[in-house]
Amino acid sequence: MTLANKPRVTLLAGGVGGAKMAEGLAALEDIDLTIIGNVADDEEFHGLWVSPDIDTMTYTLSGRINRQQGWGLADEGTRALDILTTLGEDTWMMLGDKDFGLHIYRTMRRTKGHRPSDIARDIARAFGVKAAILLPTDDRVQTRVKTQKGWLSFQEYFVREKCAPQVDALEFSGIAEARPTGEALAAIADADLIMFAPSNPLVSIEPILTIPGIRDAVKAASAKKIAVSPLIAGKVVKGPADRMMASLGLRADACGVAHHYQGLIEHLLIDHQDADLAREIAALGITVTCSDILMKDAQDKARLARQVISIAMGGKLNGEAA
Amino acid sequence: MTLANKPRVTLLAGGVGGAKMAEGLAALEDIDLTIIGNVADDEEFHGLWVSPDIDTMTYTLSGRINRQQGWGLADEGTRALDILTTLGEDTWMMLGDKDFGLHIYRTMRRTKGHRPSDIARDIARAFGVKAAILLPTDDRVQTRVKTQKGWLSFQEYFVREKCAPQVDALEFSGIAEARPTGEALAAIADADLIMFAPSNPLVSIEPILTIPGIRDAVKAASAKKIAVSPLIAGKVVKGPADRMMASLGLRADACGVAHHYQGLIEHLLIDHQDADLAREIAALGITVTCSDILMKDAQDKARLARQVISIAMGGKLNGEAA
Repeated sequence: MTLANKPRVTLLAGGVGGAKMAEGLAALEDIDLTIIGNVADDEEFHGLWVSPDIDTMTYTLSGRINRQQGWGLADEGTRALDILTTLGEDTWMMLGDKDFGLHIYRTMRRTKGHRPSDIARDIARAFGVKAAILLPTDDRVQTRVKTQKGWLSFQEYFVREKCAPQVDALEFSGIAEARPTGEALAAIADADLIMFAPSNPLVSIEPILTIPGIRDAVKAASAKKIAVSPLIAGKVVKGPADRMMASLGLRADACGVAHHYQGLIEHLLIDHQDADLAREIAALGITVTCSDILMKDAQDKARLARQVISIAMGGKLNGEAA
Repeated sequence: MTLANKPRVTLLAGGVGGAKMAEGLAALEDIDLTIIGNVADDEEFHGLWVSPDIDTMTYTLSGRINRQQGWGLADEGTRALDILTTLGEDTWMMLGDKDFGLHIYRTMRRTKGHRPSDIARDIARAFGVKAAILLPTDDRVQTRVKTQKGWLSFQEYFVREKCAPQVDALEFSGIAEARPTGEALAAIADADLIMFAPSNPLVSIEPILTIPGIRDAVKAASAKKIAVSPLIAGKVVKGPADRMMASLGLRADACGVAHHYQGLIEHLLIDHQDADLAREIAALGITVTCSDILMKDAQDKARLARQVISIAMGGKLNGEAA
């Protein structure tokens, strides 16, 4: 495969892991970065449309993210939420005053009938984000989580219940009728590299891939397809992916990730700690690079990003030093 | 006229002058206070329904008002508005983060189809306001201001243009089709005293009275009807009432106020400084009390409130000491 001088990289990403990977890629000057984010975490709060994964991506790539939390904006306030609490609203979903400014804007434009993709693009531009942040669909798709407490919205499970209940099933309501955006399909078809971020495979990446047309487009794409494992030594860095994979009958390790992406990816980066899984993964027809995949700081992120690009461009199977 | 032990006082009020008068009345333990506020200042900002006069009343009576400004809440922030500015929105209307919490709540409930009156009642209760704050109508009535810049919304005139343009005409869009609320009609019919706050007669009181049925109800009511002049020595304490009255062909003094309310009020409190107008006002069939009507602090407000109640109960025509 021949890559252009400035390779076009399309990252499928959701959650904090996805945003970190995007940040690493965005630090590279010599690629053309497009991100397809996850909208299935979206939910209405207090009449406003909240899009946590897309916002985390925008906040991260604009450098305005609260780095301690990994989500939300720095220097936030809770005055609006406090008033909503005073007014008797259920306010378990942490929404800051700046968040509210964004959600008000998004909701106003959605109410006017503007395309969610256009709104997300304009927000990212106004925040100074250079990479394109695309929505996989402009239709409403929402993850539903089956637990012993019944079916929950994703945010009810994730924020209100703090991921404590065991996940017995997942569904993406509305996904069968959802149409992929032209921008997302083009970014997949035109990519030199399609990268699967170390995001939760089941609730960040799956609701992107399951939008009718997206999985087939990825399969059909001529791009190199590389994933970074979200699990290290069977544990997730952040979030419930490991427990969720286990309760849904997948192996909760890099091998389970490889199984899940089999047929979609050619290459998987796993951590040095998981080197013993490399042979098993290779048997699935997926080449493996063992590396240090934990992203603790900006240097880690850029190094990992450079390594993936280098693999895509050079076909190397072993990690290179930063 | 015989008053009950706890006289039922219904105050027609808008703006900061109206809120001050309401605060004075609310400080009296021995009356049953109902306020009919003004909704014609309402306007949509960023997709949210903002009700400045009703909110100023709620903020004032809850003790949460920013006392320096006379409007808005104490300890406010501008994080949400700053984000809206970043996103390219026109943000001349000063809306604080706490304000946004309230406007989000109101808009959410309006979108659900709840009665604006019920929403206003629930907000006031949640803020701990004891007096009833009623809306004169649940329908949309909006003051339009004709200036050399064309027709403006009230907030465009009042906030964006800082009341600078001359007012050539006023209209209340939607008012011909508006229906009065049952609560407002009952508060007028059942009152022992109907009081006209020292609010702008043309843009605070007039859009209440002009709602079909309200003016007739006030005329038909058995209550004593007393107004406090919003003008002292031909000048308004706050706002554009004096210039507005002049440009619309009314006398910009207490006499002009009396003319405007002729047929509706029996009694008018004017300032000592306007004592020379008393005879002229009396000739209109309106009895006059000269007093110190400027409300600088809580004591002033309570004293003025007590004086009006005392006039209504005792039929006194001269001011009593506090």
